[in-house]
Parts: sequence; structure tokens; C-alpha cells
Amino acid sequence: MSPTKFNIAILGVGGVTKSLLPQLQWLISQPKNPKMNLVFIANSSKAVYNFEGALDIEAVAESLKVSEQPYLGLQELLNQLAASPNKAILIDSTGTQQIADAYPEILRRNISIVTPSKKAFAGSYQLWQDIFAAEASTDAKVYIESSVGAGLPMIKMLKDLLEAGDEILRIEGVLSGTMTSIFSSFAPVNGAGVPWSVAVKQAKELGFTEPDPRDDLNGMDVARKLIIFARLVGLPVDSAASVPIQSLVPKDLEALNSANLFLERLFEYDSSMDKIKADAEAQGKIPRYIGSIDLRSGKVNVGMEFYDKTHSFAGVSGSDNIIGFHTKRYPKPLILQGAGAGGDVTAMGIIGGLVKVSSQLSN
Amino acid sequence: MSPTKFNIAILGVGGVTKSLLPQLQWLISQPKNPKMNLVFIANSSKAVYNFEGALDIEAVAESLKVSEQPYLGLQELLNQLAASPNKAILIDSTGTQQIADAYPEILRRNISIVTPSKKAFAGSYQLWQDIFAAEASTDAKVYIESSVGAGLPMIKMLKDLLEAGDEILRIEGVLSGTMTSIFSSFAPVNGAGVPWSVAVKQAKELGFTEPDPRDDLNGMDVARKLIIFARLVGLPVDSAASVPIQSLVPKDLEALNSANLFLERLFEYDSSMDKIKADAEAQGKIPRYIGSIDLRSGKVNVGMEFYDKTHSFAGVSGSDNIIGFHTKRYPKPLILQGAGAGGDVTAMGIIGGLVKVSSQLSN
Repeated sequence: MSPTKFNIAILGVGGVTKSLLPQLQWLISQPKNPKMNLVFIANSSKAVYNFEGALDIEAVAESLKVSEQPYLGLQELLNQLAASPNKAILIDSTGTQQIADAYPEILRRNISIVTPSKKAFAGSYQLWQDIFAAEASTDAKVYIESSVGAGLPMIKMLKDLLEAGDEILRIEGVLSGTMTSIFSSFAPVNGAGVPWSVAVKQAKELGFTEPDPRDDLNGMDVARKLIIFARLVGLPVDSAASVPIQSLVPKDLEALNSANLFLERLFEYDSSMDKIKADAEAQGKIPRYIGSIDLRSGKVNVGMEFYDKTHSFAGVSGSDNIIGFHTKRYPKPLILQGAGAGGDVTAMGIIGGLVKVSSQLSN
Repeated sequence: MSPTKFNIAILGVGGVTKSLLPQLQWLISQPKNPKMNLVFIANSSKAVYNFEGALDIEAVAESLKVSEQPYLGLQELLNQLAASPNKAILIDSTGTQQIADAYPEILRRNISIVTPSKKAFAGSYQLWQDIFAAEASTDAKVYIESSVGAGLPMIKMLKDLLEAGDEILRIEGVLSGTMTSIFSSFAPVNGAGVPWSVAVKQAKELGFTEPDPRDDLNGMDVARKLIIFARLVGLPVDSAASVPIQSLVPKDLEALNSANLFLERLFEYDSSMDKIKADAEAQGKIPRYIGSIDLRSGKVNVGMEFYDKTHSFAGVSGSDNIIGFHTKRYPKPLILQGAGAGGDVTAMGIIGGLVKVSSQLSN
């Protein structure tokens, strides 16, 4: 039998894809890897493709800019991919719900999926079930590992623990690089720190927040990550709405219709945040924003907790994430820490997915 | 084609194997895994085997105790394993150099190897080359990931980084659970700590040292782990003898012919160790015993370094290991921390190897 070849299609051309392309070129050049061709790349309106051959990766970003070929639409893309004798892997970098909703169908057409997006896995539990039922019914694979923690192999580590028969007791972590950035300047391990509103503005200026920081401060991103962990360990969590979340967006500022207005008025809450910091300090501790799942009680929690200054969660800085897995065999947690966001490391998670999926599907 | 079946043979019946057997039974019972039979288990003198069927794992430890079958010898074991239509995986829990030296031959006979021992990988560079040349020449696999850090997936993480095309700049870690135990009571993050000789004795009483603590304090165990990391990233390090090692065994106590004599006289060196602690303290730091490889300078180093009290290496306690990978894409290190020793977690590393090797070799 001749060795399996793979056709790669990329949907979405944001920052992650920009970091991904040179890494993909490197991957394809490695003689020990299965043969892979990039055959398709598209943004929401335009595409470049060559389903019978391979695109020139170095030129593809430029080609897309000047392309006059419209985006084929998902159905036509799937038809083209399914028509090839090569196995197909779709990289979904769109972050859109519409593509996420189509994962079951994509898998049923024997097309594998690698994605940095949480949309498909932290949405409705029905979609989660449909995706993995579809995967089980075909040879195609869906690689969920790159959807949480960027390149940080959190899900991989959790799956390896489960695969080796360990029992997860508790998962707890600082799962938002944005929250790390804000809390490490608001309540640093050493020193007094800056006012809350200043910490939020600084994080935004450093590029660590969403365009509207409320999208980080509402805790939804942390909740989505926890939902994925919870489902992986077998808890049928319905959606982020079913998780208790401590939002750090003051009620009165929720409805303001611009990020700038929000940032201008945030200082009004500096004193109440200072009080929380002082409460922690009175216990010799500092506040951090964490997510946790306790498997023994079934409790999922997203919000502020106080930690000793020598605790590994306290010292995390930059935009790092840190996660601890408490298991039957690791009563002291197994801890993973590192950059949880950024184009290069997120792209590396996708590359890891291509390596794994292509090796699983090779003869 | 009918699905691949696996015959498992275990050499060595120490604490790791005792933890391994129930985990192996669990693994075999999982319907999603390939079919595996335990066909052979032996200590240095006796064996129990059934090469045509499967041993009863629950009864096998007891069976071995009362067995009157002599250990077949390696050659006969290999003959029997090679004669079966099932693929064979040998678990080497002997920790002996003799079996380690035979890895190239074992692999050439198409028998895969999973081991918690560093003997084969941290010995001569010639043996390292022979092992991986033998692996490349057959279908059999050698699973090196369980040889360092017990169940802590240090090598897996390093390999994943390399596989995804990241460039390793520096590897640095507290790689000895024994050293963690000693240093965290000698120079804790909070408080003055106990005298050096007391810290060493306590670690021994807690079961964290070798029978003779000099086998930990000489730094060789850390050096062996570093050698494996160095070779994995492509440095052709010849042997532990070629690495500069700061031994914490005083010259005058090296030749004492018992661990007890050594422990009795160790207090003579308490004041010089206190001086090191005071030197660190004067810089606001604490000493830790670490190993590092700097890929840019090619420098490998094993010895004491001073760290800020909020550094992640300072807060490690119990018998934890911690390792940081500084890479091109993770300029702030990717950090992994957890139990680096213990039967359950070491056995889990072996189980992880069985899962990976059997899945790679399945149709």
C-alpha cells in the first residue's frame, strides 16, 4: 500500500494562521512526517486553492490578498476535499459558531479537524455529543487538544492521565492569561501594586485583553475552558450558563456601549477592589482569579480565591497560565505552567495536532 | 486483517512492578485498548510464564513466590517472545546494566521495550546510538519517556516541543526528589530551616533517599537525567563523567564504608553548608540543587544555584521535581512540576508507554 498523503485546508486568516504558515512549511519539509499538501486557504470572502496539487505556502498569504476567487462555501469545500484520494484535515481558525456547528457533518464526511477554537467544545452539550459520535462513526479524528491553553498541553496531559487509568480528583488553575496580567500588577507578590482600573488598562495596552476587556473580566473564557475539562472527565456540563461565575464587570458598567466608556468609569470600583486586596493581605495572601472543578463534590467554580504568596498560583506573571491536576496518584498536584496565549504557541498546538492526526491515520 | 495482539513480559519484581500489576490489569480490561496478554514475569532467579495464553495478573505475584520454574535467561525469553504471532513488549524493571546492554539485540528481534530505568539511555553514547539504530531498523519501539521523572511527562513534553518544530534554548530543573526534600527543610522559603545533616537524615527517614544517601548527594542521578535530555536535543554527550557535577558528598566522607558512618559524621559540615545558606540569604535568595543545559553555549551544569524565594524552583516541596523548558516560542519557560518518584506514578509512566507503543504498532 502506498503511504497515506494528506490534504490540508485552512479556514480563517487571523494572527494564528500568520504564525501557523511558516510552522506548517517547516512541518511539511520534515522527511519523517507523512506527505502533506496545503490545498486550500480562505478568509470569509476569498480563497486560494489547488485541490489536485499543493499551494506554495510562502506565497499563499500574498496570493490570498490578490485572489479573485470567492470563498467556495463550506459545502463545496467539503465536496472537494472528500473527492480527493488523499485524506483531508481541516484547520478551523475562524472561531465562528457556524463552522463549529458543522463539525459533526465534516467528520462524517471523513474529514479530520484541528482547531484552536473552543466554540465547538464549550457550546451546547448536544453539539459535544454529536461531534464525538460522528468521530466514532468514521476514521476521521477531531483534535481537541489545541483548543485550550494555546500550545500549553493541558488537555493532552489530562487525557494521558485518564488514558493511564489515573483518577482525577480536582482541576484548578489560572486559566486566563489576561487575568494573570491584570492580577500580577494589581496584587503582585512583592509590593503594593497598582489600582484595579490601572491594571486593566495596562493589560489592554500590552495587548493581553480582548478589544473590550469586559469579554475577559466576565469570566466566560475561564468558564469555557473549565467546561471542556469537565466534559473530558465525564461530567455532562450543559453550558457556560450552568457554571457559577464571579464576573469582575460591575453590574452598572455592563450595559455601557463602548469599551472606552467602560475603562473611563472603572476607577469608580478601585476602592472596592482595594478592599478585597486588603482582606487577602490581612490573611497574608493575595487574590487570584481561578477556575476549579472538584470531581468529588461535582462543584465547578470560577472566581477570585486567596493564595499564599509562595503558592505556585501566586507567582505566575506575564500572560502565563498555570494548571494543577490533583489525582489519585498525584495527591500533590501535577502542575503545568507557561504561555497560554500568543500566535506562535497557539500555532504550535495546531502543528502538534497535525502531527498526531496524520500519524494516527497513516498506514 | 485481524487486530494486532500483544504479549507483555516483565523482568524485575520490585516496588514499581508491584504498583504496575494492578494498573496493567486495569489497562487490559479497557475495551478500547488493543488486546494484551501478560505472558511472562521473572525476578533474577525464578519465572512464571504462559507464552501461548495469558497469566492471571491478580495471582501472578503469589505464583512467582511459589514458582519452581527457573528464570529462562534472556536469550530463551527472547526466543519464546519472537516465536509468537503476537507482537511482544518487554518491560524492563530490573535496572541492571546487563539487560540495558541487550536493548539493541532485543529491538532487532522485533521486541519493543518500555522501561523506567535510565541505565540504557544515560550510559555510553555508543549504547544510545546502537539502541536507536536498532529501533530504526525494525518495527519495534523503545519507549524512553518513562525513564526520567517517573510518571511526570518531562521527556514527552520535550519530544512534543521538538516534534512541533520548536527550538530548545535551555532546560533547567530540580530533577531530584531527594534534593527537593533535603533543600526544602534545610533552606525553606519561610523560616530558618534545620541543619544540613538533620535535613539529610530526615529525608532518609521519609524514604526519599537511596539506602546510602551519598548516591543522591553525589549528583549523579541528576547528571544522568540531564544526559538523556541533552542527547534528545542532539548533543552527543558521552557520559555522566563528561558533565561538571558539584557533589555534596564531602571529600573526606566519600570513602567511609557505610551509610551510617557517613550520616554520623555529616554534622561536621553543617557550618559550611550554613555559610552557603547565609550567602544566599544575603542576596535575598535560597539555594537549590539543580541541573541545567544551555543549548546556546553547549554548557551542562549540575550543582547548587541561588533563587529568589518567589521563583517557582524555590517553592517546590515534598519529593517533587520541577523542570522548565526555555524555547524559541516559550521565552518564558514552559514548566512542569509534580511527583518525580514513587511506585504508582512510575508505574503510570510504564502504562503510558504500553498505550503508546501498542497503539503505534496496531493495524
